[in-house]
Parts: sequence; C-alpha cells; structure tokens
Amino acid sequence: MNKKKIAVILSGCGHLDGSEITEVVALAIALDKEDVSYSFFAPDIQTTTVDHLTQNEIGSRNALAESARIARGNIQPLDDLLEAHFDALVIPGGAGAAKNLSTWSTHGAKCTVLPVLEKAILAFHNNSKPIGAICIAPAILARVLGKHQPSLTIGNNTEVVQEISKTGAIHEDCPVDDYVSDRLNKVLSTPAYMYDNATPAKIFSGITKMVRELVEMA
Amino acid sequence: MNKKKIAVILSGCGHLDGSEITEVVALAIALDKEDVSYSFFAPDIQTTTVDHLTQNEIGSRNALAESARIARGNIQPLDDLLEAHFDALVIPGGAGAAKNLSTWSTHGAKCTVLPVLEKAILAFHNNSKPIGAICIAPAILARVLGKHQPSLTIGNNTEVVQEISKTGAIHEDCPVDDYVSDRLNKVLSTPAYMYDNATPAKIFSGITKMVRELVEMA
Repeated sequence: MNKKKIAVILSGCGHLDGSEITEVVALAIALDKEDVSYSFFAPDIQTTTVDHLTQNEIGSRNALAESARIARGNIQPLDDLLEAHFDALVIPGGAGAAKNLSTWSTHGAKCTVLPVLEKAILAFHNNSKPIGAICIAPAILARVLGKHQPSLTIGNNTEVVQEISKTGAIHEDCPVDDYVSDRLNKVLSTPAYMYDNATPAKIFSGITKMVRELVEMA
Repeated sequence: MNKKKIAVILSGCGHLDGSEITEVVALAIALDKEDVSYSFFAPDIQTTTVDHLTQNEIGSRNALAESARIARGNIQPLDDLLEAHFDALVIPGGAGAAKNLSTWSTHGAKCTVLPVLEKAILAFHNNSKPIGAICIAPAILARVLGKHQPSLTIGNNTEVVQEISKTGAIHEDCPVDDYVSDRLNKVLSTPAYMYDNATPAKIFSGITKMVRELVEMA
C-alpha cells in the first residue's frame, strides 16, 4: 500500500525568526505515528535572525539552511513543491510564518504571502486536499482562502482574531490541546504556542488530534 | 505536591553541531507528560557551526544562544547548574554532545568532558540521582563514570561500542524504541538517532520509556 504523502512547510529554526521547533517535531512524531510519508520544504531566502536569548536582531540567515537543522538535511526548496505529488499540506507556526512566509506580522489581513506558497495553498484547496496549520500559520490560510470563509483557530488572541475576521475567515476559539476542523474547506488548525502557557505535551496532544483527521481526509 | 525537577543539558541547536532537535523535543514532551518540571542548561561557549544543508563548517555560534531556540529562551548557562536543586539529569544527543560538551568525536575513550558537566555528573551519581543519556551522550557517562562499570547503550554501532568498552562501561545493544537501565548506577540510556533509519515516533517511544523509569527513580 502506498503511504499518504504530506508536505510540511518550514520557515527557519526557532520561534522568534523561523518555525516553532516544538510544533514541528510534535508534528513529525504525529505524522510518523500515522505511518504516512512526509517531506519538508522551506523558502531558499535570507531572513532576519533573532538571538533567542536577548531577542535582538543579529543579521540574517538562510531559511532553507536553518530549517534543515530540524529536518536533519532532508528538506527541499519551497520552489520545488509540486501539489500533484502530495495528499495534504501542513504549515507549522513560529514568527517565521508571519515574517518569512508572509508579511502578516507587519500587514495583518492585508499581508502578502510568498507567491509559491500562495499558489500551493490554492492548488491543494482547489483539488480538495486537506491543509493543516498550527499556531499563527492559520492566518496565512485566512489571507489566501478568506473568500471561501474557512473556519479556523489561532486560539483566543483578541487582536489576531479581529485581524483574521477582516479576511473573510471565521475564527473559532480553541484550547491548546484541541483543534478546529472545517470539513467543507478541508482546513484544520490547532493553536499550540499562540497560548503563552502552552506546554510540549499539550501542544503534542492538539497536533496529534489534528493530524489524525488530516490523514483521514488526505 | 512538589514536582520532581529534571535538569536537561543542551549543546546547541542541530544534530551536526549541537543537540539533536527531535531528541530534545521528544524528551520535553515525555517529561511534560510525566508532569515533572524541567530546566534547560547549555554551555556559554562559542562552537563550530555546520551548515545542515551542505554539511560544511561555516564559522561559529554560541551554544547557549542557539540552544535557546529549542528552549524558547527558557535556558540557563551550564555554569549555573546546581545538583542540589534537581532530582535527575538528562543529556540528549547530537554531535554537540561529542564536540561541545566533550571531545569524544576526536578523542573517544580518552576524551575530556567540560569540567562543569563532569562535576555535575559525579555529583548526581554520588547522590544516587538518576542520569539519562540519549544517542551518543551515553559516551560522556561512560567516560566520567567508567570505573563504576555502568551498563549503557548507544544502539549497536561497532566502532563506538569498542571505544566505549575502553572506559570500563559495559555496552548493551538496544533497539531504537527501547532503552537500557542500570539500576545500581541509576544510569539510563536510549539510542535514538544512533540508528540512521530512526524515525521521530520510534525515538519518541524509546525516550518515553526511559523517562518513565527515570522519573520513577528520581
């Protein structure tokens, strides 16, 4: 039997300037437990680096090379992602989703999304393949798919919820260890570190539940 | 009830020049599931950086600041670790264990271990507190505790097993999803990415089993 194939989009290595590491690894464990095959992609672009001790900006690093730290080198440039090769798409969170994959952190509902990612999201959606998003990454789906009024969650952060509502997407509050499923649009989301008091086991729980339905849908 | 307290020693962020990321996050999820409290420590030292795409050396980074990426900033300098404040110690793997925390990668059984880490390992052992090690990190315990002949595992890598036997430690072969427990020395170990074909779910399984006994012992 062929395994279902899931594409995972990274944006660097670290929650302040790239992908949130615990979310990515929790996702990889959950996908591996479901016995699917998954492939990592990241944009081959220079991005602003943030020191995770001091929170100061300290120059720039390449998002693909840094993402390769999480992926143990098994990663491809986002430009090489072909929707036809995969059954589902997942975007973990971290500031990289709002700063490297999109301009959400500065432009909110009016942000731009990397064209290659926007194209991929539209292709998966058009072909009725499920898309999962974690933490702040559902904001990207809201921006790209807003006119389809997808239901999604980023937890319960009032400011972000207000901004998301401007895209057309419908926000649902959701606890850290759960997820929201829009079965019409096949959009799934879980809040993870959108909650400051989130812990690895709670995040893993929410991601595991989301992945179970995502794989079923795929 | 006071939670048991576990100290976790990181050595950077990435399997080629620091801590193996999947091992650290799997450990954090497993510890969090056991409802213990855990604190991250890493040495405040400059270490050689390896590009995880090209595998080339590319200058140096600070092990504490890079480890902070996995720890989301909740990390302290290894110099501040006080054995008296903790019930157990765990050292994840990655090349950082063999290059930053010790000189195992170049000197094997005759390696030196960072003095502050060697002192900590001896203090936990002397006070009969359990010590867990993942992947290549058991080699550090072999070096420091060899005269006590601890039983431990790094999987089944013949070359490393031979080197470990020179320290006095006794190696036991062990599959990726299991662990080895030396109840006399309170030394626990699991091989994780010492197996090239290891996967996140298998690693998580081995680490979860090890953590369960470690927390019980603590």
